[in-house]
Amino acid sequence: MTEIEELSRGRPVAIVGAGLVGSGWAIVYARAGLRVKMFDRDPEITRKAFALIAGQLARLHAHGLVAEDPAAILARITPAATLADAVEGAFYVQESVLERVDVKRQLMIDLDALAGPDLVVGSSTSGIPGSAFALGLGLSARVLIVHPVNPPYLVPVVELVPSPETVPATVAFADALMRAVGQAVVHVRKEVEGFVLNRLQAVLLREAWALVQDGVASCEDIDKTVRDGLGWRWSFMGPFETIDLNAPGGVADYAVRLGPLYQRIADSRRHPQPWDEGLIREVEAQRRERLGRDELEARRAWRDERLMAFAARRNAASDD
Amino acid sequence: MTEIEELSRGRPVAIVGAGLVGSGWAIVYARAGLRVKMFDRDPEITRKAFALIAGQLARLHAHGLVAEDPAAILARITPAATLADAVEGAFYVQESVLERVDVKRQLMIDLDALAGPDLVVGSSTSGIPGSAFALGLGLSARVLIVHPVNPPYLVPVVELVPSPETVPATVAFADALMRAVGQAVVHVRKEVEGFVLNRLQAVLLREAWALVQDGVASCEDIDKTVRDGLGWRWSFMGPFETIDLNAPGGVADYAVRLGPLYQRIADSRRHPQPWDEGLIREVEAQRRERLGRDELEARRAWRDERLMAFAARRNAASDD
Repeated sequence: MTEIEELSRGRPVAIVGAGLVGSGWAIVYARAGLRVKMFDRDPEITRKAFALIAGQLARLHAHGLVAEDPAAILARITPAATLADAVEGAFYVQESVLERVDVKRQLMIDLDALAGPDLVVGSSTSGIPGSAFALGLGLSARVLIVHPVNPPYLVPVVELVPSPETVPATVAFADALMRAVGQAVVHVRKEVEGFVLNRLQAVLLREAWALVQDGVASCEDIDKTVRDGLGWRWSFMGPFETIDLNAPGGVADYAVRLGPLYQRIADSRRHPQPWDEGLIREVEAQRRERLGRDELEARRAWRDERLMAFAARRNAASDD
Repeated sequence: MTEIEELSRGRPVAIVGAGLVGSGWAIVYARAGLRVKMFDRDPEITRKAFALIAGQLARLHAHGLVAEDPAAILARITPAATLADAVEGAFYVQESVLERVDVKRQLMIDLDALAGPDLVVGSSTSGIPGSAFALGLGLSARVLIVHPVNPPYLVPVVELVPSPETVPATVAFADALMRAVGQAVVHVRKEVEGFVLNRLQAVLLREAWALVQDGVASCEDIDKTVRDGLGWRWSFMGPFETIDLNAPGGVADYAVRLGPLYQRIADSRRHPQPWDEGLIREVEAQRRERLGRDELEARRAWRDERLMAFAARRNAASDD
């Protein structure tokens, strides 16, 4: 039995809310072999979703990103006439309705009335913590945030955020499901506004906007700085691995060398929090657990190989 | 006559400081067809630089990133025994010495004594503004910051930062030279600490470190959030284009929808500066100049094509 079969035991996923987010999820689940039932209070939105999904599946196939016949994948997705119809027999609900607390709360109440004892509900919200809409119900232990990047069938990262009432088994189940359908799981361990992804985007964007406001650089030049500079490494390494490889002695060395510059930059925008010794030790320890000190050099060679391959691909891409 | 020939008129580039940064620059200039003279006060460093350059050129060739015979490129780079020997006849100096104000100031004084009337000097410093070491000399009008990302022969972005004494003709010359050798130019219009690239990196890193400190996510999960999420789009679009395409009405629409969330995230780290109406208008105007409102939809289709091509390449890369 595959991981997917073990998790689903032949039952479908229900997607509630058939807009852009719900449609993207339908592709992820159906591509992985799962049956998908789609529901939206507005049948016109569901109709549009099927057209969008069919078009995207054809393009994914053309790019070699799905091997299976797109028609076969599409055939696994069916519309549901009512919420009860969608949830009937489902092992998992992907909530993808409007980004409003009252709408999400009402849906949780409705799902609570319909759900069997082992139904798990993942919410696609990009910023509303579960505490705001998922507490105090029989279902609450089995609700968590499962936040995708758009479109999830291309960009794999998914943030999992439990509420204070979510039980660990629910998080473990969602983690296994996401890995089984090919997503990259990030565990957000506390309910912070914006979770991790939007917090990182927020601080970079705010500095970017401030630099424009101060007349330091144009939007295009800032885009170019990221697109032709920072983004290259971040797209296959992330910020910690990037700096870990950018000082002879790894990330702690980097922090000692460049921490003061970053502190001055931060102070000029009035952040607090210096990188103190305890934190440096903590980050260093986490990095060293991923990559031993004696592996740093080999990993830098790996980085350079990736950069070269990436550069070759970008050249090929700009030639066509 | 090519752009390179017009700018150089057959004269070489002098690279002063033959460490990692100087070596990277040597590849950029020699690859573009220019003769390069390398000088370092420590001949052992110059010797090592030649070995590094030879190795890197071979790998660039193997990856199809340089078409010319690596030996022919290498033959255009020659060591110089003294600073005077390096600068003799050069049309441009790429200063790549130690990141210390006193060292850079002394070099500017030495160059001032050696320079002909049209020599331009670009400093590779990643954060020290020209005001700190390049003012009050005959040469000052022809000195500016030309800050690369490491390694510059793979990652194209270069920040140009004039000091208050740099004349516009010097900036125009450096802009033309950088484009001619294949770099992507970013104009930093005011001397701010960290310029643009390191400021953007600094704010993202500081939030990343703070999230680790607060126990919200691990280094690896934060890396994954960027590597498998934010970094994909940033690596070919930059942050402004990304958000411009992420709301139906473009960047101003995005600012109205998500500005409050970002403000709350920012407040939780005590930034100032809300995205006020004037700034929103300014950013919107700059974006609309790059991409008309009626071109947004087509550009989103282009973005999805790039994302698919990128995903296909990443799959190929992780298969090998």
